Amino acid sequence: MLLKVTAAGACHSDIAVMSWSADGFPYELPMTLGHEGVGTVAALGAGVTGVTEGDAVAVYGPWGCGTCLNCAAGKEYYCLRAAELGIHPPGLGAPGSMAEYMLVDDPRHLAPLGGLDPVAAVPLTDAALTPYHAIKPSLPKLVPGATAVVIGVGGLGHIAVQILRAMTTARIIALDVNEEKLSLARAVGAHETALSDEQAAAKIRELTDGRGAQAVFDFVGAQPTVETAGAVASVEADISIVGIGGGSLPVGFGFLPFEASVSAPYWGSRGEFHEALELARAGAISVHTETYSLDEAPHAYERLHDGQVNGRAVILPNG
Amino acid sequence: MLLKVTAAGACHSDIAVMSWSADGFPYELPMTLGHEGVGTVAALGAGVTGVTEGDAVAVYGPWGCGTCLNCAAGKEYYCLRAAELGIHPPGLGAPGSMAEYMLVDDPRHLAPLGGLDPVAAVPLTDAALTPYHAIKPSLPKLVPGATAVVIGVGGLGHIAVQILRAMTTARIIALDVNEEKLSLARAVGAHETALSDEQAAAKIRELTDGRGAQAVFDFVGAQPTVETAGAVASVEADISIVGIGGGSLPVGFGFLPFEASVSAPYWGSRGEFHEALELARAGAISVHTETYSLDEAPHAYERLHDGQVNGRAVILPNG
Amino acid sequence: MLLKVTAAGACHSDIAVMSWSADGFPYELPMTLGHEGVGTVAALGAGVTGVTEGDAVAVYGPWGCGTCLNCAAGKEYYCLRAAELGIHPPGLGAPGSMAEYMLVDDPRHLAPLGGLDPVAAVPLTDAALTPYHAIKPSLPKLVPGATAVVIGVGGLGHIAVQILRAMTTARIIALDVNEEKLSLARAVGAHETALSDEQAAAKIRELTDGRGAQAVFDFVGAQPTVETAGAVASVEADISIVGIGGGSLPVGFGFLPFEASVSAPYWGSRGEFHEALELARAGAISVHTETYSLDEAPHAYERLHDGQVNGRAVILPNG
Amino acid sequence: MLLKVTAAGACHSDIAVMSWSADGFPYELPMTLGHEGVGTVAALGAGVTGVTEGDAVAVYGPWGCGTCLNCAAGKEYYCLRAAELGIHPPGLGAPGSMAEYMLVDDPRHLAPLGGLDPVAAVPLTDAALTPYHAIKPSLPKLVPGATAVVIGVGGLGHIAVQILRAMTTARIIALDVNEEKLSLARAVGAHETALSDEQAAAKIRELTDGRGAQAVFDFVGAQPTVETAGAVASVEADISIVGIGGGSLPVGFGFLPFEASVSAPYWGSRGEFHEALELARAGAISVHTETYSLDEAPHAYERLHDGQVNGRAVILPNG
Repeated sequence: MLLKVTAAGACHSDIAVMSWSADGFPYELPMTLGHEGVGTVAALGAGVTGVTEGDAVAVYGPWGCGTCLNCAAGKEYYCLRAAELGIHPPGLGAPGSMAEYMLVDDPRHLAPLGGLDPVAAVPLTDAALTPYHAIKPSLPKLVPGATAVVIGVGGLGHIAVQILRAMTTARIIALDVNEEKLSLARAVGAHETALSDEQAAAKIRELTDGRGAQAVFDFVGAQPTVETAGAVASVEADISIVGIGGGSLPVGFGFLPFEASVSAPYWGSRGEFHEALELARAGAISVHTETYSLDEAPHAYERLHDGQVNGRAVILPNG
Repeated sequence: MLLKVTAAGACHSDIAVMSWSADGFPYELPMTLGHEGVGTVAALGAGVTGVTEGDAVAVYGPWGCGTCLNCAAGKEYYCLRAAELGIHPPGLGAPGSMAEYMLVDDPRHLAPLGGLDPVAAVPLTDAALTPYHAIKPSLPKLVPGATAVVIGVGGLGHIAVQILRAMTTARIIALDVNEEKLSLARAVGAHETALSDEQAAAKIRELTDGRGAQAVFDFVGAQPTVETAGAVASVEADISIVGIGGGSLPVGFGFLPFEASVSAPYWGSRGEFHEALELARAGAISVHTETYSLDEAPHAYERLHDGQVNGRAVILPNG
Repeated sequence: MLLKVTAAGACHSDIAVMSWSADGFPYELPMTLGHEGVGTVAALGAGVTGVTEGDAVAVYGPWGCGTCLNCAAGKEYYCLRAAELGIHPPGLGAPGSMAEYMLVDDPRHLAPLGGLDPVAAVPLTDAALTPYHAIKPSLPKLVPGATAVVIGVGGLGHIAVQILRAMTTARIIALDVNEEKLSLARAVGAHETALSDEQAAAKIRELTDGRGAQAVFDFVGAQPTVETAGAVASVEADISIVGIGGGSLPVGFGFLPFEASVSAPYWGSRGEFHEALELARAGAISVHTETYSLDEAPHAYERLHDGQVNGRAVILPNG
Repeated sequence: MLLKVTAAGACHSDIAVMSWSADGFPYELPMTLGHEGVGTVAALGAGVTGVTEGDAVAVYGPWGCGTCLNCAAGKEYYCLRAAELGIHPPGLGAPGSMAEYMLVDDPRHLAPLGGLDPVAAVPLTDAALTPYHAIKPSLPKLVPGATAVVIGVGGLGHIAVQILRAMTTARIIALDVNEEKLSLARAVGAHETALSDEQAAAKIRELTDGRGAQAVFDFVGAQPTVETAGAVASVEADISIVGIGGGSLPVGFGFLPFEASVSAPYWGSRGEFHEALELARAGAISVHTETYSLDEAPHAYERLHDGQVNGRAVILPNG
């Protein structure tokens, strides 16, 4: 299908991609950025059914082959054959959404907007789907009385706080590096906030009567934040390192509380994609956005790079 | 331990117990009612540790042996040896909380009130624990976009609505027989309400685009309500019949949507008991209560029998 | 794709289909039976990738749309749009495998045989997939020390016994109506067997020290067998009614042990389809088969109808 | 209760304890070793019910308070109050089983032997319970077609292989440092074995068509083995570091396959303790043992230290 792009989300990971040198760049150049996209169906390929010209849709980004064992469960982000078949997500190998039009290979990679505002909806495809996917497996540990820690209240983190607030009664403690971010965290539902510094772990231990948190979500992933993540975890905690800041946490007997498990999840499944859109339809999450024209996109990325974007930067290629 | 009872909850099931004839009564007579209790520790038996005189505590009611396989998981409500050893819950065989003082056999059957108001807290021990236990296994099905139906918005049902609202973003549809109950349902968080009549199932099908509900909780359990429960279920739905109204739903190939599973859960585990108290501490549930002196208890039960109690009736034996 | 059919499985449900009158027959007539199929890819449609002419493949039968919420999780057997779009499984609406050639709509509905013998493999697509799908959700209850009951040791049941034996250490008790079937049950791994009569429930209670079974799989589904299923269940048991014998079990407060849950599952997911094939590759299950030419198919169905087939009847359309 | 000890298991972790200096030793000295114990009830304390003099019993080792949130779920190994209350397991703070008699504080810390041989049974209390507890959460990932890797085929590892073989159809690949251990691995059920060296990871990738293993259990936990564990993991794998060899594996974005989760589990719950005994009763595991008198215990520990024990060393204090 050909989509006329209504809105495209700018992501921190785009900045990482732009920083890579052309030598050894993993994708073909030139490449159009944009792995978050919302648009209107402008034309259908031969034999395409299930969508109609004019439909307002959101794009599921982590494309896979659709038939392997992981794709059979909707987990196209872990497609077993994508590398072999040369399949890439839009904006991360395939042409992305930072353009007036984009191609989508199959109707299964679309979901109807269903009345959602395009600007509000476009970050759901990654900035909501990724934290939702990270949080969902930890919900059974976030029983009433438990504590969840969110490190980094940016594009993904401020949505994570809202998801946790909507789907658990856990106490939510948010950490970030300045008071403006902490203020956003409280506005979207964090019960407690603290500066992400050397005292953070001690403060969280105190708030939890020494037990620590049952789930920690690190949307920064730098060395100091992953160490804080480890320092605030309880026994049997889940520690999810989502941020691509390059940090790592050593795990072994005696390194962390018993059975605290550490992993680095990525994006989300087709089912979770629909659920992320439903979270917004239910009013459970609202994404703070700043909008820019396609010409202003470089400026948007500069602000994002400098940590000045409060929430998510959205480009309007046809706006 | 000896407790000075601060508050005792009156439950529909007490009325069922009172209706049984003395011939064949399953417990020794006379018997003090009251399986919901909150009190203050008045005296400790020999060798008791972990509690102190004066502690304000809530009583975990479904007592078991503490050592069998089910008790080893905190599921004392399904104790494998209770019958053999003659162990009964207070108010359902053992002397209950509808008295100035009551005996509790072991500190593991107590939890600290932790600042909760005794009147507000006493219904948590059954009227919140029972729906929480019924709802918890269905949480994985109540993803964003799913629908939950609550039938009967009385003592347990109006708490069920609140638990669902606090722990899911599912759409909650409540059914009951009069507008006053439906008004309570909306006040505590139901998104939609409908009279529990022949049109209810059709209305719910319509609200869910024909799919039906992913979880149905029937707190009445009469023949018409269990039939409604079956009629509104989706494929793979959970149908929990909590109410003791004597109804039954036939299950077999072709009787209900595929893989809709029907069960009748009961009370809850020691872990869930603590979690139910935490739900109230987190502000996620508040129980509507009416209070009565011990002398007025018969009157309270009459009102309960007549469906006039909005929420839960609480007796204050020392009030 | 066009498949040259190597083997086609005959199923009890085909007999049910054949018994329906032409008036009100739910599918277009004439219809080719056969929802279990194995074959060789004979021709590819335009644009089909991922399979090659000559590939030996098994057919995933419960076709869905591939894009709805249930299909997104590989659960095409519960496709939300199949009815609306007129999608039917082969042999149950679409032309089936009881022919020299059959059409398959999409490569996602195929899996490579991977060295499995076609005759041994064809029953895996339903007679193994269906019990595997029924058993898988109950595995967490079948801990060491638990008991599983299998009612009906026919095409599906004798595979169920093998799956339970390979994936649990539960004690397996099989019930059927004659000693020949019980002998097969013991040969494929049942620890205990009993005639499926009025004494069966008492015998199972005795074998389990009164506790009953934690999982019951009824592959007959007639009124007497579903009643036996209910009578042998423990608290928190799973009762799966797979057989289409028309029986039903009433569920409600006091009808079954607490929290025993009853459901009627159906077929299985794309992921489970691959897993069922892997069960055979691992040597965990082997299907007893009798083979017939296409001309002999009516005779095969007669034997099946009369309960004379030990295991599964397989038709060889090109044999 | 007072137990007359029939058999006591010698564990690698005892050697670690003996290596600690008296300065800063975490427990009171002198201390009797032995956290694996089987015996006969010799005397009951006041008010003890549920056991009888003469009962043959196994001792659940990871003692907790019995009332905290974790103990309420039978997870006494993660008791929240053990440190505060000075509660220690026998042989790890409290007097252990390497003596003619030992004290057990509560009947909930005992299970009936139920016909098991004392020498064969005593390693079940740790050497079987610990791997069972490590394996159990990974069972859902060990579907047919999956691969499990066991690193270190000693006291715990050779039981892990048997548990995996009995409860899954996964392919089991065992690694160790010499052919004798690999031979034991094959004898107890490993499908493939390899020396635990630099080539091991490449060999496992090859055996799994490049996918890697869905679960890795490292019973050594040294730096080279944890690195091998990380190198053979697939996306979404579980890596459990059980061995106390001091190694650690760094986890963060890009360090391991996506969503591979790493944790260090410890011992097991009261429910799992009963299940470990049932595994032996079902014939699913048999522990290779060497027996020694109490006087020979130092010699047994020397052999264990030198890697000469094939299976588990058991001391017979009254033998």
